Amino acid sequence: MIRILGIDPGSQRTGIGIVDVDAAGKLSHVFHVALAVAGEDSFPQRLKRIFEGVDDVIAAHRPVECGIERVFMARNADSALKLGQARGAAICAVVHRGIAVHEYAATEVKKAVVGGGRSDKSQVQHMIGILLGLKGPIQADAADALAIAVAHAHTRSSLERVGIARTAWRRRW
Amino acid sequence: MIRILGIDPGSQRTGIGIVDVDAAGKLSHVFHVALAVAGEDSFPQRLKRIFEGVDDVIAAHRPVECGIERVFMARNADSALKLGQARGAAICAVVHRGIAVHEYAATEVKKAVVGGGRSDKSQVQHMIGILLGLKGPIQADAADALAIAVAHAHTRSSLERVGIARTAWRRRW
Repeated sequence: MIRILGIDPGSQRTGIGIVDVDAAGKLSHVFHVALAVAGEDSFPQRLKRIFEGVDDVIAAHRPVECGIERVFMARNADSALKLGQARGAAICAVVHRGIAVHEYAATEVKKAVVGGGRSDKSQVQHMIGILLGLKGPIQADAADALAIAVAHAHTRSSLERVGIARTAWRRRW
Repeated sequence: MIRILGIDPGSQRTGIGIVDVDAAGKLSHVFHVALAVAGEDSFPQRLKRIFEGVDDVIAAHRPVECGIERVFMARNADSALKLGQARGAAICAVVHRGIAVHEYAATEVKKAVVGGGRSDKSQVQHMIGILLGLKGPIQADAADALAIAVAHAHTRSSLERVGIARTAWRRRW
């Protein structure tokens, strides 16, 4: 069984999700949270909250691999700079723990969860609930984080079936 | 005496500089380096190098305050995203150590070092060498990092003279 961390970073809210995938590709939900950081005094303090929030989740649940959404193009330079800093903070917390980060395009994530690359956010939220047997609605950013973890779980299972193991550095624990 | 860290983050090279400033505002050079990260395998690995590079410098020299350049507008969304992630990694290393981060506009930094807000990069390099009594040329990003530290040293000295102490959280050492 492999424990996977999914992250959907943002400068307002960062979604963090954890799923387990067994040798047969069966998924189980472990944890999810949407870390709200917009209320912090300063932007550096937001980054601290993201870094330490991701680090706390890793310490508590000890995932061994991580998936994160690849950003192709942000809306504009200003939002790209904010998103970039949030993403940098989240990735640092992961790589500092010696966990490999795998990047997935939004279309790959949607395909893994809903089956189509053009589905909207609410479909992802809905399908993640069904796939992981969760009761009640899940916050959108947390659902996206779980979806990224599921996308990585699918990808690594397919690769293992055809005998191509993704190189993953071992954890530092 | 206050030890100040200056950082000029970038996804190719991150400049890190440290200066001491005494009660009379006198500056002394402590350390500078330009951390080249472009050769890393993946972007997450670059961020790891930046985070750990800044963290190593903090561990070795123990600065108590930090200055970083404020980014108003990046060239385009793609470069903003890269710069943002590098900046996020550097800031995380600082705030994770409990050090306050102060942001300065490029014009404020140039004014503190050269006396004018419109001076070019080579003037900053030259003047930093003279101000800190350094022999030989300094790499441009390292010079920028020292310039930001000097800008913060000047600002905090002026503020102290008029009796306004900047709130700085104490280090965690």
